[in-house]
Amino acid sequence: MDEHILPVELEKAYRLLNHGPTVLVSASHGGVDNVMAAAWSCALDFSPPKVTLVLDKATATRALVEGSGYFVLQVPNMGQLELTHALGNISLADAPDKLERCGVRLFHIDGHAAPLVAGSSAWMICKVIPEPHNQQTYDLFIGEVVAAYADSRVFRNGHWEFETADPRWRSLHYIAGGQFYAIGESAVVKTA
Amino acid sequence: MDEHILPVELEKAYRLLNHGPTVLVSASHGGVDNVMAAAWSCALDFSPPKVTLVLDKATATRALVEGSGYFVLQVPNMGQLELTHALGNISLADAPDKLERCGVRLFHIDGHAAPLVAGSSAWMICKVIPEPHNQQTYDLFIGEVVAAYADSRVFRNGHWEFETADPRWRSLHYIAGGQFYAIGESAVVKTA
Repeated sequence: MDEHILPVELEKAYRLLNHGPTVLVSASHGGVDNVMAAAWSCALDFSPPKVTLVLDKATATRALVEGSGYFVLQVPNMGQLELTHALGNISLADAPDKLERCGVRLFHIDGHAAPLVAGSSAWMICKVIPEPHNQQTYDLFIGEVVAAYADSRVFRNGHWEFETADPRWRSLHYIAGGQFYAIGESAVVKTA
Repeated sequence: MDEHILPVELEKAYRLLNHGPTVLVSASHGGVDNVMAAAWSCALDFSPPKVTLVLDKATATRALVEGSGYFVLQVPNMGQLELTHALGNISLADAPDKLERCGVRLFHIDGHAAPLVAGSSAWMICKVIPEPHNQQTYDLFIGEVVAAYADSRVFRNGHWEFETADPRWRSLHYIAGGQFYAIGESAVVKTA
């Protein structure tokens, strides 16, 4: 594993998502790997950390998540802007070479079958908590974060370091029509 | 109503939340108004637009949402940084003068009983879709957006205009410990 990738304490894993970044969702089942971009993912609980994720029935990734019971959320960065947009606009159903075409390199962490996308800022390996009504009615999946990692060049000691890291590490926040915003300046409110 | 506040087409309401801002949640029931800050709110569907919102059982706002069946999500901005942080750290249960103390000014829109926070960038009036299992087990509420508005100085024609608006309009993205990030620069990926 890349020397920069360090585990994140599970109690602080929510901080990886708290500022609302667009994520990459990866999953693997039956020998098929896939990755898609998703803007609709959110923290749900602190400890054990849980997340929500919306997966449309039309996505190829959804079948892999349902089949394996796992998904990985990764926080992509400005260095992955084109990759992130491509992963959100090409379906594996139309392009069996999607990952190659998008320039995705996958890696694995010992003890976890789900594939991770290299070059991301952070990774949350999530186990699906089956909620068939939510999944069927709202395309809403709930996962428990069973392991979390971050690249220490942008997230260290439980804190994002966007303000000191190279700008290519800034998280992406998708709007629509190919338009993203990068996360911006830090603002700290002093408490009495 | 302030001349700058314009309706947002419901089909485009998801864009108000798509970039993952921290929100202010307001509600009113039995003559009691309250507002809290929340980082865990997310778009859930396009049309009709739906949202998810996590409301801890300890919050005073939750009882108002359950009682009235409505909540309002507002997107606060850098001009409301201190107000947003205070609304997330003071409970109405401890401070009956919470709203006054935090400097909140409420207003109403004809036809809607729920109160809106003046000075925000956008507002989504949401009707709770009752899901008792989600609410009880995960503190997770689902709402349908029945009306949406935005301040035309920062959101116009279905688009955020952070890059041309005064910096005080930038959305807030909370991490922990009083630290927020403002939304940053726009990055547009051209599609072929």
